[in-house]
Amino acid sequence: MEEKTLKRDLVFQGRIFDVAVDQVSFPNGGQSSRELIFHKGAVAILAVTPDQKIIMVKQYRKAIEKVSYEIPAGKLELGETGSEKEAALRELEEETAYTGQLDLLYEFYTAIGFCNEKIKLYLARDLTKVENPRPQDEDEFIEVLELSYEDCMTLVETGQIEDAKTIIALQYYALHLANA
Amino acid sequence: MEEKTLKRDLVFQGRIFDVAVDQVSFPNGGQSSRELIFHKGAVAILAVTPDQKIIMVKQYRKAIEKVSYEIPAGKLELGETGSEKEAALRELEEETAYTGQLDLLYEFYTAIGFCNEKIKLYLARDLTKVENPRPQDEDEFIEVLELSYEDCMTLVETGQIEDAKTIIALQYYALHLANA
Repeated sequence: MEEKTLKRDLVFQGRIFDVAVDQVSFPNGGQSSRELIFHKGAVAILAVTPDQKIIMVKQYRKAIEKVSYEIPAGKLELGETGSEKEAALRELEEETAYTGQLDLLYEFYTAIGFCNEKIKLYLARDLTKVENPRPQDEDEFIEVLELSYEDCMTLVETGQIEDAKTIIALQYYALHLANA
Repeated sequence: MEEKTLKRDLVFQGRIFDVAVDQVSFPNGGQSSRELIFHKGAVAILAVTPDQKIIMVKQYRKAIEKVSYEIPAGKLELGETGSEKEAALRELEEETAYTGQLDLLYEFYTAIGFCNEKIKLYLARDLTKVENPRPQDEDEFIEVLELSYEDCMTLVETGQIEDAKTIIALQYYALHLANA
């Protein structure tokens, strides 16, 4: 099934991702082109408070020109491979001022048809507030909320939660943590 | 929270997606740039056979240079907005030679931080084989499998299912269809 790369044109190099167009050949001899996004990967955190509230972050998302409710998440910086858990703790602290015990739940590609972005999704429990948390990124403007699972599902039903990683986290909560 | 677009540079126009870099201003007066992917959207189908098997498609994914197991899915073609259900039926037939009754389960953005790709996820039931199904796309080489939920979860555990839309579909199955 493998597609061999005959030629790669790097058409964009950015801070967040690179874009390439590969000319590929198939096992049957056919050829086609593949438009590809290369991304460094990200972490996301399903953070559950001792009173069973889920921490959600409200922010403007330029790609969709809308405000979105999501679980806390952040891009991996260069060289963070192998220490994704530290990256997740950093993002949790920066975005929510919480720290906690982290366990890996899932790793998944977000848009596997054209993009190699992989998200590692962690569960954070035993949350405690950090006294002097790291500051948020300069270009991030977020509001942090602690919502019940039922409130989150209302946001799903009204279309205010339309984010794949957040839906995965909420379904995980319903499957494994609700009534626990 | 809104970010105003001061300037947009379209840096790539492809068959699958376009890439832009926006210069944006924040409500506090600050500025930054946003790297953005514009995609026409896609449909995906959780197709469940009468004997409770889940239809999975095995294919090579160039973006990750690996073989991947996923639920059937396909890009929307230009002008298909408003008829996503027909697009989902077309993809189901092309990839699996099945047709069925479709219900919308979720819509979600796959990579909301930088990409506007939205997937509409449908549940397909009452599946029947199409006698002369539409042919597969010329540049798609796929193998179709009918797997139990337990077999799918083994593929998740061994890292052969690492696709966000497929994980959402499997979680949905576990929450709403298992033992139904």
